[in-house]
Amino acid sequence: MKAQRVEMFVCPMASPSDTSGLQKLAGSGNIKPDTLVALVGKTEGTGAHDDWGRVWADVVLREWTAKFLDVPLDDVAKNVIFVLSGGCPGVITPHIVAVTREWIETADADGHAGEDPRLVVGRAGSDPMSPEEVGRMGQIRKVAEATRHAMEDAGLTDPHDVHLVMVKVPGLTTASIKDAESRGKSVVSHDLTFGPEGAGVYANDAAALGVAMALGEVPEAKLSDEVVRRNWDLYSEVAMTSSGGEKRHGEVVLFGNSSSSRSSLRIGHAVTKDFIDADGVRNALRTAGLRFNGGLPDESDLSRLVHVFAKSVIPGSDQVRGQRITLLDDADAYQIGKALGGMLIASVTGRTTNYVSGGERNSHQGPPGGNIVAAVVRTET
Amino acid sequence: MKAQRVEMFVCPMASPSDTSGLQKLAGSGNIKPDTLVALVGKTEGTGAHDDWGRVWADVVLREWTAKFLDVPLDDVAKNVIFVLSGGCPGVITPHIVAVTREWIETADADGHAGEDPRLVVGRAGSDPMSPEEVGRMGQIRKVAEATRHAMEDAGLTDPHDVHLVMVKVPGLTTASIKDAESRGKSVVSHDLTFGPEGAGVYANDAAALGVAMALGEVPEAKLSDEVVRRNWDLYSEVAMTSSGGEKRHGEVVLFGNSSSSRSSLRIGHAVTKDFIDADGVRNALRTAGLRFNGGLPDESDLSRLVHVFAKSVIPGSDQVRGQRITLLDDADAYQIGKALGGMLIASVTGRTTNYVSGGERNSHQGPPGGNIVAAVVRTET
Amino acid sequence: MKAQRVEMFVCPMASPSDTSGLQKLAGSGNIKPDTLVALVGKTEGTGAHDDWGRVWADVVLREWTAKFLDVPLDDVAKNVIFVLSGGCPGVITPHIVAVTREWIETADADGHAGEDPRLVVGRAGSDPMSPEEVGRMGQIRKVAEATRHAMEDAGLTDPHDVHLVMVKVPGLTTASIKDAESRGKSVVSHDLTFGPEGAGVYANDAAALGVAMALGEVPEAKLSDEVVRRNWDLYSEVAMTSSGGEKRHGEVVLFGNSSSSRSSLRIGHAVTKDFIDADGVRNALRTAGLRFNGGLPDESDLSRLVHVFAKSVIPGSDQVRGQRITLLDDADAYQIGKALGGMLIASVTGRTTNYVSGGERNSHQGPPGGNIVAAVVRTET
Amino acid sequence: MKAQRVEMFVCPMASPSDTSGLQKLAGSGNIKPDTLVALVGKTEGTGAHDDWGRVWADVVLREWTAKFLDVPLDDVAKNVIFVLSGGCPGVITPHIVAVTREWIETADADGHAGEDPRLVVGRAGSDPMSPEEVGRMGQIRKVAEATRHAMEDAGLTDPHDVHLVMVKVPGLTTASIKDAESRGKSVVSHDLTFGPEGAGVYANDAAALGVAMALGEVPEAKLSDEVVRRNWDLYSEVAMTSSGGEKRHGEVVLFGNSSSSRSSLRIGHAVTKDFIDADGVRNALRTAGLRFNGGLPDESDLSRLVHVFAKSVIPGSDQVRGQRITLLDDADAYQIGKALGGMLIASVTGRTTNYVSGGERNSHQGPPGGNIVAAVVRTET
Repeated sequence: MKAQRVEMFVCPMASPSDTSGLQKLAGSGNIKPDTLVALVGKTEGTGAHDDWGRVWADVVLREWTAKFLDVPLDDVAKNVIFVLSGGCPGVITPHIVAVTREWIETADADGHAGEDPRLVVGRAGSDPMSPEEVGRMGQIRKVAEATRHAMEDAGLTDPHDVHLVMVKVPGLTTASIKDAESRGKSVVSHDLTFGPEGAGVYANDAAALGVAMALGEVPEAKLSDEVVRRNWDLYSEVAMTSSGGEKRHGEVVLFGNSSSSRSSLRIGHAVTKDFIDADGVRNALRTAGLRFNGGLPDESDLSRLVHVFAKSVIPGSDQVRGQRITLLDDADAYQIGKALGGMLIASVTGRTTNYVSGGERNSHQGPPGGNIVAAVVRTET
Repeated sequence: MKAQRVEMFVCPMASPSDTSGLQKLAGSGNIKPDTLVALVGKTEGTGAHDDWGRVWADVVLREWTAKFLDVPLDDVAKNVIFVLSGGCPGVITPHIVAVTREWIETADADGHAGEDPRLVVGRAGSDPMSPEEVGRMGQIRKVAEATRHAMEDAGLTDPHDVHLVMVKVPGLTTASIKDAESRGKSVVSHDLTFGPEGAGVYANDAAALGVAMALGEVPEAKLSDEVVRRNWDLYSEVAMTSSGGEKRHGEVVLFGNSSSSRSSLRIGHAVTKDFIDADGVRNALRTAGLRFNGGLPDESDLSRLVHVFAKSVIPGSDQVRGQRITLLDDADAYQIGKALGGMLIASVTGRTTNYVSGGERNSHQGPPGGNIVAAVVRTET
Repeated sequence: MKAQRVEMFVCPMASPSDTSGLQKLAGSGNIKPDTLVALVGKTEGTGAHDDWGRVWADVVLREWTAKFLDVPLDDVAKNVIFVLSGGCPGVITPHIVAVTREWIETADADGHAGEDPRLVVGRAGSDPMSPEEVGRMGQIRKVAEATRHAMEDAGLTDPHDVHLVMVKVPGLTTASIKDAESRGKSVVSHDLTFGPEGAGVYANDAAALGVAMALGEVPEAKLSDEVVRRNWDLYSEVAMTSSGGEKRHGEVVLFGNSSSSRSSLRIGHAVTKDFIDADGVRNALRTAGLRFNGGLPDESDLSRLVHVFAKSVIPGSDQVRGQRITLLDDADAYQIGKALGGMLIASVTGRTTNYVSGGERNSHQGPPGGNIVAAVVRTET
Repeated sequence: MKAQRVEMFVCPMASPSDTSGLQKLAGSGNIKPDTLVALVGKTEGTGAHDDWGRVWADVVLREWTAKFLDVPLDDVAKNVIFVLSGGCPGVITPHIVAVTREWIETADADGHAGEDPRLVVGRAGSDPMSPEEVGRMGQIRKVAEATRHAMEDAGLTDPHDVHLVMVKVPGLTTASIKDAESRGKSVVSHDLTFGPEGAGVYANDAAALGVAMALGEVPEAKLSDEVVRRNWDLYSEVAMTSSGGEKRHGEVVLFGNSSSSRSSLRIGHAVTKDFIDADGVRNALRTAGLRFNGGLPDESDLSRLVHVFAKSVIPGSDQVRGQRITLLDDADAYQIGKALGGMLIASVTGRTTNYVSGGERNSHQGPPGGNIVAAVVRTET
C-alpha cells in the first residue's frame, strides 16, 4: 500500500515577490513538481482587503508554481493549495511554507503499528462561492464539503486526528457586492473592513463553521445564517481561515496525524484560555511532542520545532483576567491584535517566523477569548 | 533617626478622569496628604503629542491632588511628582500608581543591619527647560541635576542601589517651536511625532542621558548635543523617560533599595536582550525577589508582585534573532511597538495592569535592542 | 407680542478646554445667562467614539456654562443645548459657536410683514434612550418628538421654514452594550466604530430619520428598524446628527427663518450633488442671501457670512462622476472623508472655521452621494 | 527640420496591475513603440515607502513596456521615463498618463512663427545616486544635470518656457542605510517615513532644489547640504518630485512650450497662495489656455482640459489665513494632506483623474504654504 511522507520547509521572504527560497528548495530537490501540495504563508502589506503586498505575492507565487509544475497558470490551483495570509505587523517575519507529500510504498497494510502517529496532509478546493453566499450557509456548506474531501485526501477518518484546517475563502469587494445586488441578491455586509461587522470576518467565520460542521464540532442542525458571528458557543478548535476578495472558490489544506504516515513530523494543537495565555502556547508545543520543563524550550527543543500556526483573534470583551483593556477602542485594533498574537507566539518560540493570522474581533475559530495554536515538530529518532 | 516606609497602590482607571481608586485609598487612609509623593500611571488615549486623554487625566489628577493636599493647584508639583505615560494600546490596562512614603522613627542609626535592602523613593523637580534645550545638553544637565537631588531625597549614595528613575520632561509643540524661533533659537527637530527624528524622542533620550550622567553610567565627557540619538553605546539601564509638550520643567521620581528602609517592598530590574525576550522579563521579577522555577510565576508568586515598570523601545534594526521583521515599516509602528511590549510583560505577569511605555525607535533607555524592566515585589514575612 | 432676535458668535478654540472666547463674549455682554441657548462646535481629537478631546471639551464647557448660568451642573442641559462634533482633521479649525436668543417685545402681531424672514432657533431635549433603542425606531421616534418640540420652541409651523436641525444622540459603548445584553436585549451593532456597520452611524442615521419623520420628509409608515442604513431613498435634507457614547438622551437645536423674527441673520441650505460639488456649496451661500457672481464670494460677501454648517458623508459607491475612487478602501476613510468635506467648504468660504462633521459611509443625512450645507448670513442693512 | 508633436493619454487603472488602457492605446495606434516617451501616474496603495501597490504597478508596467517596445526589461528605462506616485487617498482616481512624442518634418526652420507656443517634452535619466547622497548636494547636482539634459532633449533653452519638471529619485531603505553605514558613510535621516525629518522628503526636496538649480530659480552658490529642508526661501515653481527606495538613479521628464512645436496641446502652471486656494487652481487652468469667467470651467472648457498635475505639500505652519488648523497633529497627516490636495483640484476640475502627489510637510517644491499646479490643455482649432 501507499503511505504519506510529508515535509515542511519554511522560507523567509525578503519582499512580496521573493521566490528565492522556493527556487533553492527546487534546486536542491527538496520540493518537486509532483510532491508540492501546498504553499502557506504570511505576506507583508496592510493586511486589509486591498492588501497589494498579498495580492502581488499571490500572483508571483502562482506564476512561479506554474513554471515549476510546467502547467498553465489556471491549473496551478488544481495542484497546489495556496493559503497566504496578509499582514506581518510587529514581529511576524514574512515567510512561505512549502508543504510536500510523497507516497511511499509500504509492505505493511496497518502502517507502522505501535508507533506514534505522524503528519499527513490533505487538500481540496471548494465549489465556487457567489458573493451572496459569503458569510452565510452557502459558504459554510461548501467549506464543509471541501473539508470532508480534504480529510479523505489525507487518509483520515477520525476527526480527532485532525489538528489544523487552513481555509482560504472569497470575501466581498465593491465590485462583487455590486454584482450581487445587480442580480437582486443581498450581501452579508457592506463593510469591507475586518471590523466586527465587516464582510471579511463574516467570510472567515462561515469558513470556520464549515470546518466545525465537517468535523462534527458543531452539528449541522445548529447552523444557520443567523448564528454566524452571533452565537459564539459554536466554534472549531482547529480551523484557521482567511478571506480575500479576489478569490471565487475556497481552498482547504488539512493537517493531522496518522499511524500509517511515514513522515518524520508530528502535529499537535492547543487552545489558549485568553489573549495573554503564554502557557496555552507552550501546551501546543508539548502536544506536538516537544518535552521541555517549565519556562521556554531550549535550543535543542527548538531545533525540532518546524513551525507554529496560530490565530490571534481579539477578545469581544474589554476585560482580560478581570482588568479592563482598551484594545477594542484602538483605531488600529485589527493590526495591533494581529501583532500581539505574533508577540505571544514569538516570546515562547524564540523566533519570529511564525504563521499568525488574526486581528478580527471574536471568531468561530476557537472558543470565546481563546485562540488556536498548532505546532509541527520533528520527531526524535 | 528617620527611615522610609514606602508603599505602592495600583488603581485601574475606568476613564482618563477616574479618580475613584485614589479617592478610595484616601478614604481608607492608605494615602495621606503628607505621605503621597508620586502618581505614576498609564492613561488611555492616542499616546501622541496631542493625546487629550493624557492631558485630561493630568488636569483632573492635579485638581484631585490639590484638593486632597489642600494646596493651590500650582503647588501640587512641589509636593507630588506626576509621571503619566499616554497610550494603552493592546493589553495595557489604564491605571495610576500612588506611591507613598512615611518617615519612621528608628532607634538604630544603621538601619536594620543585616537585613535585605528595601524600597526607598526620592523625587525632585528640575529647573525650567526652554524649547531650545529640548533634546540637547541643556535638558541632559537639568535632568542629571534633578536625578542627583532625587537620589539625595531617597537617601541613596551608591548608584548601584538605584533600580528605576522615571522622568517626565518637556517636549516641543508648534507653539514652543514658534517661541524659540522668534527668539532666534533653533530647535532639535520640527517633527512633533515620536518618529525616529521626532522631538518627542529627542526629549526622552536627552532625559535618559541625564539619568545616565547622574548615575555615572555615562561619563559627562562623552556627552554632547551630537551624541543624542546617534551614539547608542551610551545609555542608562534604569531610566524610563517620557515627554509632553505642555510641561516646562522636568520631574524625577527615583526608586532604589536601602538597608535603612522600613518598607515591606523591594525593587529589582533587568534588561531584555532583544524585543521578544520573555526570559529577560522573568529575570526582572527574580531580581526583585520572586523565586519561581522555570515557566511562569504562580498565583502565590503573583500575589507578591506589586507592579512592573517596563519600556518597549522598538529595535533600530529590521532583524530579530537573525530574521527580518517589518515593524519599522508599519505605519503605526509607534502604537504597535508599545503594544508589543505590553504583551511581552503581560504574558509573563499574567496580568494587564503593567506600566509599559515606549514605541519609539531606538533609545538611550537601555542597550541597543534591549529594554528595561523593573519590578516591585512584596517581601515574604 | 414677543419676537426672537438670534445671534451667533464663532469662537476658535486653542485647545479642547479653551473657554476664553466664551469668557470674552460673556465679559462684553454679547452672551448672557438668559440668552445663551446653544453651544455648537467642532472639537479637536480623534473623532472616534472614545475621542477624549471631545469628552474633555464637553466637560469643561458644561462646567463653564454652569458657572456662567449659576445653575448646578446637572441643570445645564435644561438651559443650553450642546452639539459638539469631534474631529478636526485637515483644515477644520476647532471652534465653538455660541447661539443666543433674545425675546423682543413687538407692537405688531404679524411680525415685520413684508420683510424677509429671519433666523429663529428652537431647542429641545429628548426622553432618555436605552442602548437597545440606539439606531432603531425607539431612537427615531424620540428624536422626531424632540424635533417637533424644537419647532414649537422656534415658533415655526411650516417644515419648509426649517433649514438646519442639529441633533446629538447617544451611541453605544462597550459598557452600554453589556448593560443591554445583561437585560436580554439586543443591540443594533457590536461595531463601536463609525464604519458602515458601526453603532455610531446607526445612531446618527436613526436621528436623521427622526428629523425626517418630524418634518414630513419621510412618512412614518415607511419607517422601521429594517430601513435604517438600508433604504437610502429615505432621508432628511436638513438633519445633521452626531452621536456619543456618554450621552443618555438626545438634544436638538433647530434653525429656520420666520417673518416674525427680529434677527439680523438669515439661514439657507442646499444639497451637493456629489462629493466634489463645489457649486453645491456656493448654492448654499446664495440661498442664505450672499449674492456673488460666479467664482468665489469676495471679502465683502464673506464679511456677511457668519457660519457654515456642513456634512461630509462619504459616498457608498466607488464612483464619482463616472471614475473610480478608492476612498472606501482607505484605512482611515472616516478621517479622510471628514477632512475632504472640510476642504470642499474651505475652498469656497476662504476660511477654515467651518462646522463640518461626517466621515461615515452613506447616510440618511442628505440624498445618496450628496451632502447638506447650511449657511447663516448677516442681512444687508 | 524636425519638430515635436506631443500627446497625452489618460488611462484610469482598475488595479495596480491594470494595463488594459495602455493595451487599448497600443491597439488603436495612439501610442507606438517609438513614440512612447513617458508613463506618469498615480497608483493605489499606502503611499508609504513600502507601498506594494506602487511597486507592483511599476513591475507590471515595465514588463508591459518591455514587451511593447520589444526590448529587454533592463532597457526600458532608457526608452521610457516612469514617474509613478503612490497613494490615491480620497478622490484621486488611480491612472496612468501615456506621453508620446513624434518628430514631424517641417519646412520652416523657425517653427510656426507667430503662433502660440505648444507643448514639448524632454526626458533624461541621472547618474546613479548612492544612499549617502540622498537628500544632499550629490542628489541635487545629479538632478540638476539630468534636468539640463531633459531641457536639451525638449529643445528648450529658456527656463521660462519650462512649466513642469517631474522627477523620481531614490530614497532610503533599511537595506540601503545599512549599506551606506557599512561603508562608513552617514545618511541624511534614519526616519523612513515621509514625516518632516523623513528620508523620503529629504530625497524629494533635494530633487526639487536640483531642478531649481538647473533652471536658475536658485543660484548654485546658495545651495548646500545644510539648506535642504531648512531654508524655505529656496524653491522651484515647476518641480514635482517623488522618491522610492527601490530606485538607484533619478528620472526626469520635463514639459514646456515651444513655438516650434507642432503639438495641439499647451501647458501652463500657477502656484496656490495657500492650502485652500481654489483660485490658484483656476489660475493654472487659465494660464494653460482655458478661458472661463469666474466660477468653474463648464463642460466645453473641460473637454479641452487634458490633465492637471499638482502638488499638495502641507503647510509648515498651524495657521491658514489666520486661523489655527490641526493638520500637523493628525496621526495620518501625510495621507490627509495628499487627499486634501486631491479635493482642491477635483472641486475645480469637476473630475477625479488628477495627478496629485504630496502629503509631506513643507517642501522646496513651491513657495512656503503654496503648491504648484500645472495644466495641459488642448488648443482650440
